[in-house]
Amino acid sequence: MDVEKVTNEIIEFIRDYYKKNNLKGAIIGISGGKDSAVVAGLFAKALGSENVIGIWMPCHSKDEDYLNALLVSKTFGFELKEFDLTNIYESYVRQIKEVNDVSDNELVDSNINIKPRLRMSTLYYYAAMKKGYIVPGTSNKCELYVGYFTKGGDNVCDISVLADLTVDEVIRIGEYIGVPDKVIHKVPDDGLSGKTDEEKLGVKYSDIAKVINNEEVDIETYKKIKIIHERNFHKFQIPTYKK
Amino acid sequence: MDVEKVTNEIIEFIRDYYKKNNLKGAIIGISGGKDSAVVAGLFAKALGSENVIGIWMPCHSKDEDYLNALLVSKTFGFELKEFDLTNIYESYVRQIKEVNDVSDNELVDSNINIKPRLRMSTLYYYAAMKKGYIVPGTSNKCELYVGYFTKGGDNVCDISVLADLTVDEVIRIGEYIGVPDKVIHKVPDDGLSGKTDEEKLGVKYSDIAKVINNEEVDIETYKKIKIIHERNFHKFQIPTYKK
Repeated sequence: MDVEKVTNEIIEFIRDYYKKNNLKGAIIGISGGKDSAVVAGLFAKALGSENVIGIWMPCHSKDEDYLNALLVSKTFGFELKEFDLTNIYESYVRQIKEVNDVSDNELVDSNINIKPRLRMSTLYYYAAMKKGYIVPGTSNKCELYVGYFTKGGDNVCDISVLADLTVDEVIRIGEYIGVPDKVIHKVPDDGLSGKTDEEKLGVKYSDIAKVINNEEVDIETYKKIKIIHERNFHKFQIPTYKK
Repeated sequence: MDVEKVTNEIIEFIRDYYKKNNLKGAIIGISGGKDSAVVAGLFAKALGSENVIGIWMPCHSKDEDYLNALLVSKTFGFELKEFDLTNIYESYVRQIKEVNDVSDNELVDSNINIKPRLRMSTLYYYAAMKKGYIVPGTSNKCELYVGYFTKGGDNVCDISVLADLTVDEVIRIGEYIGVPDKVIHKVPDDGLSGKTDEEKLGVKYSDIAKVINNEEVDIETYKKIKIIHERNFHKFQIPTYKK
């Protein structure tokens, strides 16, 4: 991949789409991780940083992630707003427990997915308040290949610029546009489960990239990745009855 | 359309998909309107009513809608749980107003769309608590054609059985499977804006069906429907940068 060429193409792609649709700005959830940093950097370059609004949406989040989010907003010069989801999240969980006979333990998995959905709702809330603002997605090609996202959560977006880039390509673009080292080289985690992405998935992003690019990986890893890919295929293709 | 044939095909379609994917039940948001009633009826017939859980999620809703939801659950014999979204919705709006300098008036449109997103989050919350339960969608072909849904809200689903049926076809199936008269012939509204769907859209569902079926409509109506269709096309096809 020619980093400079791809970066410029993405910036042109964004500008073209905004011009054709008479749009103005972007509302981006800033997590402190690399994907949202790269997306925010690209949109700031394409639209001007005054047309990018980053939203930091803590919900039992780590201070380190906040500091990284702040660093990203300072690096690219866009405003970072805070919308704390803790109270809303906790009322949700409390109410679920009140009306259902379930223990905290039984709710662990369901609770993990509610957060990205509340984040999505919040981003669209902000987008609806500002005329001409839309919500860019931050999923990269490796995450999408294995369906590593919450349906109705972080996959809901209005424009997608990383979806055809593997994790290492996202990192190279991030380095090129100046995403701070500690952000771009941070080990990716969902900030939800306490585990890194690769621990949760049981496979490495570099191996997923190899499978996508038809490069050699050992057969066990290949099978594992293919199984995850197929298991999560329903997230992309809704089974639909046709007359 | 042969109502009996299509109804049986949908029931078979549901059973096949559940069998192939080793699934058990369905979590369906019951609004008191016809689409969710028809979907719930079809799933109750396909899976047995003990495997359908209806969720009534009021949020400044009308008593009449609750009574209709209850009537639907009684008609098809499935359990109706209540999850009141009023408090969660109001904390959301309150917090948005606290951290942003916006008036109630400026929030009218953004507030309308937060409700379907909270409903979606709630349905998936319930689905995650019950092993093998998924979330059927309720959008019909006319709504989908004009993009009449909230992105990240009522369009998020795991299986879709009305997407290829126009409004009048949904009504005929509803009558055939025994959806109560007052539900199946209720004038559709979103329960959100105080307006009927057709008032909001500015076009009639019967005319949308004609455009879909290439039947004759007057030229002004045709143009209006085509414009809405194209304006909302972005809800289906996310613009994506490709290398």
